[in-house]
Amino acid sequence: MTRATLLTITRPTSAPGSAAEGDTGSGFEAVDADAPQVRLMDLGLTRGDGVFETISVVDGHPQALDPHLQRLAHSAMLLDLAEPDLDVWRRAVLAGIETHRSNGGDARELYAKLILTRGVEGTGRPSGWVFVDTAEDFTAARQGIRVVTLDRGYRHDVAETSPWLLQGAKTLSYAANRAGLREAARRGADDVIFVSTDGFALEGPTSNVIVRNGNTVRTPQTDQGILAGTTQASVFAFFEEQGFDTVYERIPAAELATADELWLVSSVRQAAPVTDLDGTPFTVDAERTAALNAFLLARTS
Amino acid sequence: MTRATLLTITRPTSAPGSAAEGDTGSGFEAVDADAPQVRLMDLGLTRGDGVFETISVVDGHPQALDPHLQRLAHSAMLLDLAEPDLDVWRRAVLAGIETHRSNGGDARELYAKLILTRGVEGTGRPSGWVFVDTAEDFTAARQGIRVVTLDRGYRHDVAETSPWLLQGAKTLSYAANRAGLREAARRGADDVIFVSTDGFALEGPTSNVIVRNGNTVRTPQTDQGILAGTTQASVFAFFEEQGFDTVYERIPAAELATADELWLVSSVRQAAPVTDLDGTPFTVDAERTAALNAFLLARTS
Repeated sequence: MTRATLLTITRPTSAPGSAAEGDTGSGFEAVDADAPQVRLMDLGLTRGDGVFETISVVDGHPQALDPHLQRLAHSAMLLDLAEPDLDVWRRAVLAGIETHRSNGGDARELYAKLILTRGVEGTGRPSGWVFVDTAEDFTAARQGIRVVTLDRGYRHDVAETSPWLLQGAKTLSYAANRAGLREAARRGADDVIFVSTDGFALEGPTSNVIVRNGNTVRTPQTDQGILAGTTQASVFAFFEEQGFDTVYERIPAAELATADELWLVSSVRQAAPVTDLDGTPFTVDAERTAALNAFLLARTS
Repeated sequence: MTRATLLTITRPTSAPGSAAEGDTGSGFEAVDADAPQVRLMDLGLTRGDGVFETISVVDGHPQALDPHLQRLAHSAMLLDLAEPDLDVWRRAVLAGIETHRSNGGDARELYAKLILTRGVEGTGRPSGWVFVDTAEDFTAARQGIRVVTLDRGYRHDVAETSPWLLQGAKTLSYAANRAGLREAARRGADDVIFVSTDGFALEGPTSNVIVRNGNTVRTPQTDQGILAGTTQASVFAFFEEQGFDTVYERIPAAELATADELWLVSSVRQAAPVTDLDGTPFTVDAERTAALNAFLLARTS
């Protein structure tokens, strides 16, 4: 198996003084992915104080690269981090993919992970990395996943009333998302749909929810402290091409059980159809899901 | 200034296979604190998936070491991590302090930070570190701090109803705590008291709340998804010695403004008296707070 590829971003933001010593001008440099590259007192580790993105790379092409970079910048803003230098990040992602492939990493599906942190405590200088590796094999998940709903603990409007809770930012503070997945496993399921305390379906720990009823395909609107999905946007494009109506709205969690089809969609895993929600079985139209995943894997923007 | 001291815990938990290659038998080893020691794909960084403790060290003595170790183990349990080998961690803390002092780190107040993560993704082997350094100078905070209340977004009973939200665990996913402190700064304050959506005073981002009315000293009871405070326990011991009644209970946030005195208490910073809460001034009994801090700094257990 090909070793992973790792770049340190030596100029992660455009803020004065954000460049690391030894910044070469390109703003990034290849480093040994098998060696430790993070200092213990990096606030990304000690406080989960940073943001990230995970990008699918198919046939060497990073999918929805610009939307991912824009979301990285949006998350950084919500955390009061300096604005990432997106030109540096874009070139680093492309360089990382090229390096990985020329080192023999020629699997059809790779992923690139972008991490931007507040940096080592006391330095005031953010840290950044781009990591490229072979994607996990998600063939089984693309056939079907079992899902449970779990309380997220927040009202649907908490991003508006209490922005310091950082709902809607893709932060490194994902321990509760991971705990939700362990709770799902305890209940015999593969994944989670979080529900607000006032009863609205929100999102998965690392995915968006897609709900089809007849000719209408819906997803929870993103003013509910949920992440605007880059893959979800492409899923809507697929359904629009096929003549479906697509709608962003508040979706009561109780309506999920009445859907004709449900998917959790995300980068890398793409569209995973739900075969069972809290014990209620769902019929999967395998052909439609296969077409959807083929569409997602073929994206060239 | 003396360089920080860093130990890698080579046997962080007692689970079979948890020892790193090269574990020497002691379960820890000194490493270069100025060099990167963390791998990028450590889940502690990529998902904030780990737990920590910060321990005051005064005159070479780690304060409340056993309660801190017990809390580390409790947090690990809430995250379904294997049980930390507390004997290894205890010896590592003591060794780290001794190394730091013999390298010239003879400031009266140091701190030790313990970090236990789920480890590098895919290895199934947790990571652990103990970091020892000179404490920040908290003289000013021990004279008085300005505090604002902020919504934590959760009901007071969320730890009971929704344990996957990990309230009550001291996790590395602290981005929202840091964002709360930035919001406090925007409001001209130094610190935060979080309030539940149903109106109860909870805790600070890294402290417990102490409320005195007359002869009664109270703190919010810990079944509200808040962290059982090691320093708070010592604060109660101080007040009990002085003949005060000490009480754990649910404290409506609205009652805070009617307190005779308020403190935020935590390791390292110790007791910080509140001079202003949401714009309401409080009188600080400087002598009492000084006696309390002298008591806390003199702890030998």
